[in-house]
Amino acid sequence: MRVCLLGAGLIGMFYTMSLHGKRGRDRVSVVYSRTQKSADQFAKQWEIPVATNDMLAAIERDDIDVVIVALPNHLHKSAVMAAAAAGKPVLCTKPLGRTAAEAQEMMEAVEAAGVFAGYLEDLVYTPKTLKALKSVRGGAIGDVLWVRSRETHPGPHSDWFWNQEMSGGGAIIDMGCHCIEIARNFIGKDIRPVEVVCWADTQVHPIETEDHAIGMVRYENGAIGQFEVSWAFRGGMDLRDEVAGTEGTIWLNHWLRTGMEMFSAGGEADYVAEKAESSKGWLFPVGDEPSALGYVDMFTDVLDALEQGREPAETFYDGYVVNAIMDAAYQSVTSKRWESIELPVWRGKEKSDHISVSRDFDDEHHLVKQERMPDGSTKVILKNKTTGEISQKII
Amino acid sequence: MRVCLLGAGLIGMFYTMSLHGKRGRDRVSVVYSRTQKSADQFAKQWEIPVATNDMLAAIERDDIDVVIVALPNHLHKSAVMAAAAAGKPVLCTKPLGRTAAEAQEMMEAVEAAGVFAGYLEDLVYTPKTLKALKSVRGGAIGDVLWVRSRETHPGPHSDWFWNQEMSGGGAIIDMGCHCIEIARNFIGKDIRPVEVVCWADTQVHPIETEDHAIGMVRYENGAIGQFEVSWAFRGGMDLRDEVAGTEGTIWLNHWLRTGMEMFSAGGEADYVAEKAESSKGWLFPVGDEPSALGYVDMFTDVLDALEQGREPAETFYDGYVVNAIMDAAYQSVTSKRWESIELPVWRGKEKSDHISVSRDFDDEHHLVKQERMPDGSTKVILKNKTTGEISQKII
Amino acid sequence: MRVCLLGAGLIGMFYTMSLHGKRGRDRVSVVYSRTQKSADQFAKQWEIPVATNDMLAAIERDDIDVVIVALPNHLHKSAVMAAAAAGKPVLCTKPLGRTAAEAQEMMEAVEAAGVFAGYLEDLVYTPKTLKALKSVRGGAIGDVLWVRSRETHPGPHSDWFWNQEMSGGGAIIDMGCHCIEIARNFIGKDIRPVEVVCWADTQVHPIETEDHAIGMVRYENGAIGQFEVSWAFRGGMDLRDEVAGTEGTIWLNHWLRTGMEMFSAGGEADYVAEKAESSKGWLFPVGDEPSALGYVDMFTDVLDALEQGREPAETFYDGYVVNAIMDAAYQSVTSKRWESIELPVWRGKEKSDHISVSRDFDDEHHLVKQERMPDGSTKVILKNKTTGEISQKII
Amino acid sequence: MRVCLLGAGLIGMFYTMSLHGKRGRDRVSVVYSRTQKSADQFAKQWEIPVATNDMLAAIERDDIDVVIVALPNHLHKSAVMAAAAAGKPVLCTKPLGRTAAEAQEMMEAVEAAGVFAGYLEDLVYTPKTLKALKSVRGGAIGDVLWVRSRETHPGPHSDWFWNQEMSGGGAIIDMGCHCIEIARNFIGKDIRPVEVVCWADTQVHPIETEDHAIGMVRYENGAIGQFEVSWAFRGGMDLRDEVAGTEGTIWLNHWLRTGMEMFSAGGEADYVAEKAESSKGWLFPVGDEPSALGYVDMFTDVLDALEQGREPAETFYDGYVVNAIMDAAYQSVTSKRWESIELPVWRGKEKSDHISVSRDFDDEHHLVKQERMPDGSTKVILKNKTTGEISQKII
Repeated sequence: MRVCLLGAGLIGMFYTMSLHGKRGRDRVSVVYSRTQKSADQFAKQWEIPVATNDMLAAIERDDIDVVIVALPNHLHKSAVMAAAAAGKPVLCTKPLGRTAAEAQEMMEAVEAAGVFAGYLEDLVYTPKTLKALKSVRGGAIGDVLWVRSRETHPGPHSDWFWNQEMSGGGAIIDMGCHCIEIARNFIGKDIRPVEVVCWADTQVHPIETEDHAIGMVRYENGAIGQFEVSWAFRGGMDLRDEVAGTEGTIWLNHWLRTGMEMFSAGGEADYVAEKAESSKGWLFPVGDEPSALGYVDMFTDVLDALEQGREPAETFYDGYVVNAIMDAAYQSVTSKRWESIELPVWRGKEKSDHISVSRDFDDEHHLVKQERMPDGSTKVILKNKTTGEISQKII
Repeated sequence: MRVCLLGAGLIGMFYTMSLHGKRGRDRVSVVYSRTQKSADQFAKQWEIPVATNDMLAAIERDDIDVVIVALPNHLHKSAVMAAAAAGKPVLCTKPLGRTAAEAQEMMEAVEAAGVFAGYLEDLVYTPKTLKALKSVRGGAIGDVLWVRSRETHPGPHSDWFWNQEMSGGGAIIDMGCHCIEIARNFIGKDIRPVEVVCWADTQVHPIETEDHAIGMVRYENGAIGQFEVSWAFRGGMDLRDEVAGTEGTIWLNHWLRTGMEMFSAGGEADYVAEKAESSKGWLFPVGDEPSALGYVDMFTDVLDALEQGREPAETFYDGYVVNAIMDAAYQSVTSKRWESIELPVWRGKEKSDHISVSRDFDDEHHLVKQERMPDGSTKVILKNKTTGEISQKII
Repeated sequence: MRVCLLGAGLIGMFYTMSLHGKRGRDRVSVVYSRTQKSADQFAKQWEIPVATNDMLAAIERDDIDVVIVALPNHLHKSAVMAAAAAGKPVLCTKPLGRTAAEAQEMMEAVEAAGVFAGYLEDLVYTPKTLKALKSVRGGAIGDVLWVRSRETHPGPHSDWFWNQEMSGGGAIIDMGCHCIEIARNFIGKDIRPVEVVCWADTQVHPIETEDHAIGMVRYENGAIGQFEVSWAFRGGMDLRDEVAGTEGTIWLNHWLRTGMEMFSAGGEADYVAEKAESSKGWLFPVGDEPSALGYVDMFTDVLDALEQGREPAETFYDGYVVNAIMDAAYQSVTSKRWESIELPVWRGKEKSDHISVSRDFDDEHHLVKQERMPDGSTKVILKNKTTGEISQKII
Repeated sequence: MRVCLLGAGLIGMFYTMSLHGKRGRDRVSVVYSRTQKSADQFAKQWEIPVATNDMLAAIERDDIDVVIVALPNHLHKSAVMAAAAAGKPVLCTKPLGRTAAEAQEMMEAVEAAGVFAGYLEDLVYTPKTLKALKSVRGGAIGDVLWVRSRETHPGPHSDWFWNQEMSGGGAIIDMGCHCIEIARNFIGKDIRPVEVVCWADTQVHPIETEDHAIGMVRYENGAIGQFEVSWAFRGGMDLRDEVAGTEGTIWLNHWLRTGMEMFSAGGEADYVAEKAESSKGWLFPVGDEPSALGYVDMFTDVLDALEQGREPAETFYDGYVVNAIMDAAYQSVTSKRWESIELPVWRGKEKSDHISVSRDFDDEHHLVKQERMPDGSTKVILKNKTTGEISQKII
């Protein structure tokens, strides 16, 4: 597949490493950057035949099969609109828009134009997440009650992230979009997200946008998706998910504790891992970063989908839902209360019942819980079905 | 020290193991339980000379040095009042009261009577927590920005916990009190907790009180104390703390991943650990449970304090502050907004400034952040002090 | 690249998953198995156009670019000989031969025929190992003093492994080859392995070959490569490497503790991970098994090498050295003493000096060591350069 | 209990912290050191009434209940002999002697004098080890096949350790004694250790004794106790045990990964943990060091034993067995072969059969192994009881 890459920053680099990487049959054949110099440098490093600073010309070329938007947030919409107008399949990095309104416009444009569109939410595609999702969907942990998704590090690497106008916000827009969509995948994409409560503050940096935020998204079936994002975390990049279900638990650690540990007294001469804070002492490198971050499996899914004429796992519709949740989160930061999530377009279930678990102990009692005690005995807590009385006994 | 123990349940057992344990010079000399039978059984198991079901008589004995209240929540107040009336030093398990009003009455009673009183908040005393607090107070991680304290398991072991009238609430009252006080210790006990937002639900059990709750407590200096409590967690007892500071991070795992791992195909004949859910497959036992849960260091501090005529680390005043925060959390669950914490008695700082960090890059710029890039170069993000403009450069 | 795959077992499956996987441009176009039925099944599952039980015919086809030998050990030699005779590039799975004599013959055959040959030692290519090797070669941990490489599980999945004649041995032949070559990579492939001591026993299974063995390989520079292999391990597959250097340490855990943990009360309906022993309780799945086991990076290197006309990282010569070390290990099991490693062909350094570290404290003393004491002071241990006397002082 | 402490070094400090620690009823009432100055300093720090540099006078005082020998290795024998002569109960730190001959003399002296004697092997008493031993003895992992016990760090803190004459050896004498006795406890103290093979080298330091050694001890029932000791390890103190049994596995990490992790950009002002190498970056402190190292439970057992007139868990006989194993290890380093362990006094089983496991699949076949395959099927490997033929089938 011949790829036209818009954007030559860190994300463009990870994308190109994944597309070119290993024995792939896909190649970036055109790269666009806002300055010709950076386009040229990038093209040279990754052996890309064409480099340009004319976005429209890049998109309209005949010799490309798909356009990838890897630009700062404020340029997503115009790039997507141009691809839709040119009738080109388009893949857009996260977040889709800066607001749900922007995202909805983009979604409607590609749908109206009938072009294939994929939402590049890489963290839903990490090998660990894919395997965990398969287990959850197979019933291994029962109904999902709660998901905590956390992405925190000492702050992004490019200036535009820190500029409210360009980015559309701070840590929530930058990383909350990942966490929200990860939780949505575990809880079920067809379950309606109902309302959000969110705290945010600028705790450390001399900036206007938030550098730390924590929010809870309540889904119609009672499940909670918790996101924790920070640009003020120290120690590297903390990228973890926790999923609690009625029958089990999943813990994923994608970055700082993945089974690779190194102590170096002298110092590691090379780059250790994205957002690592030191190159001496105990270090926690990551073996294959593009794979661990989901890029490899993401492009596998999305390019296969394009070839097979099916929808990818993450669509512009998903990006729009995420933006709607973030809009409500920002409102909640100001209003200091739970805020409803506005979804003018909703394609999931119209109604989901509250998760419920009922275990009978005998005809007269519900089993509340059972535990093995230090003396080896087993104790049950029971509730009388008629009177509601709680009692306990050793069995 | 001769101890009069009120209560012969799980917590009474842990207390007794800690007091008698190892080569201690303290002994439980009287045990009271609501039924003579359970008092007798407990006394026999732990070689306690006197067992009774008459609480007042137990408290008023001449041959005891201190009274420990290890009773269900609804009995804390009457037991403390009786000890105060009898002029006996008294130690009360967590939570102090079912509400701040109840706690305040207990605090005022012991202060009016001039008796020594200690709040038995064991999880603040685990060896890991004590060492971490020392590091934080020594400045190792800078100013604390955020604390996550989590205690979740499949539900408590005694019937009264599940009874709203006796317990005063569900998972928040049972375990939120631990998490809130742990966070308060890391953030600083003299910083005023200002407001709370909290979600709670009864997700799994056939009960009236909440079996899962998550809340955020905002302190006057901008720090956040996050508590996560659940009776619906699967996999054992998840007991973890995370502390983020401007200069560092601390992660404590007290229970499920402490460096002891066992696989048993045949099955462990014995008890594995409190709240463990299985005795086959991969198991995570805890070496010395009373020590890991803080009981040993707690009694060391509180009994030393009593002998030395000083305050223990945790007082009834602390218990009352925790109750006031939980009161606001319950209000927030209902009102669905942040709720102010009412503290008619406040003994900390009258005013705390917002945490602030300022790093200059040069005369004209603040340093926003610095990162080592995959190509080995170092990039800085800067903010112009005059114009506010954000820029980046490779240094 | 059009691949002719010889062998349709577990390893053939992992190879095919890696070659076809993701967006690869390589395809298995012919598969051979000893029975037509298993060849057909495999071909159907993986969409391979041609399936045969005629090995020679498969190798001699014009429409294949490379032959992969994924057969039981006793068939490696004849398959390689046939490929060499047919002038076809050939890749052979581990171990190269059952003995060094066999391996040397194979090496000489491909070299005489001038065909490209690669040794498919996947565990040297795991993403973690590649990153660790880069760090070691960059000096991050100084000189390597010791490597422990461990692979243990409850036993292999196919009958022929357990048959001495077909396999050439037990756990040493099966997995010792991995561990030995991993250590050799860390220590330096140009450093001569001098001698081996090895213990082996049949501890658990009703078989003739060893199901548990531990050996030490001493290299000319004093470094030690320790291998631990077992078919009697319980709890899954334990795949770990530890590297100790003069300036640092590396710990790699490839399988059982990689940052993915799941508790399932109900049971995981699907396969958890290779050699997992249960599907209930605490489970430790692996996100992307072919990648974590090194297959993806191995084929990237070896097929790139073939296209670029360069040597792959692991050659038949490496396979032969590993076989020679295993021969000596088996001798040592019998002789109960260190045994010399016989290497009639040796292409590394003729002579390596013993690793040496010398740190001066001052003109008169070597620094033996330095440590921070519990009271905060720093203590040094010194050795007088003239008298050899050891002393200590607080600095 | 009134303790006479001989030795005011690091081990004396840990002992005193454990004895005085928490609410203990035991006190060090006399401390002896080779210089009056260090005795005085120690006495002042720990509030010990009497400090002396006259060992004999200290031992012979009427107001002491027990003598603890916490002196360098070359002084153990004379101190124990003096205690035996004075009829005083005596506890001696590890290793008991520098050789088995020395240890045997000490054992015979206390037995002849009829004085109580305890061998202070603290690492057998860590809370994790005690719990693991209980599980093993309860059958949770079946028969023990293999134990790896590892203690490595950057070298000891006092000059005499580095002096062959005083210490009796290097890393083996210093730490091998721990590892050997840990393995012996797991395997069974009544199983005879038969022979040893050991590698040792001076890899890094300017000294005569070994700074790195690895050995295997074979027990009569076929079990292997593997010890790994080093003074050349970087990254702190690596203190781990691994136990493999026919039905399970145990992993213990006592120091570097115990569930407490800290990142400090600024630097930890205080001592982090014994043998920690840095106070910046990622640090792994230990909550309660004396407890984690086993001192608290060790003194509980040994002083309870003295009071109750029973044997402690670790006796001088155990110390002598350990010395005998180390003697054989040193011989093996020189002879480069397995060496028999000489035990003129042996109090365990006269004969132990080889561990054996036999599982029938059906009347005609032994079950060799069973595994769940990636496609979800279950495969068994069988051995025909008559023909010995190995086969496989899917069940």
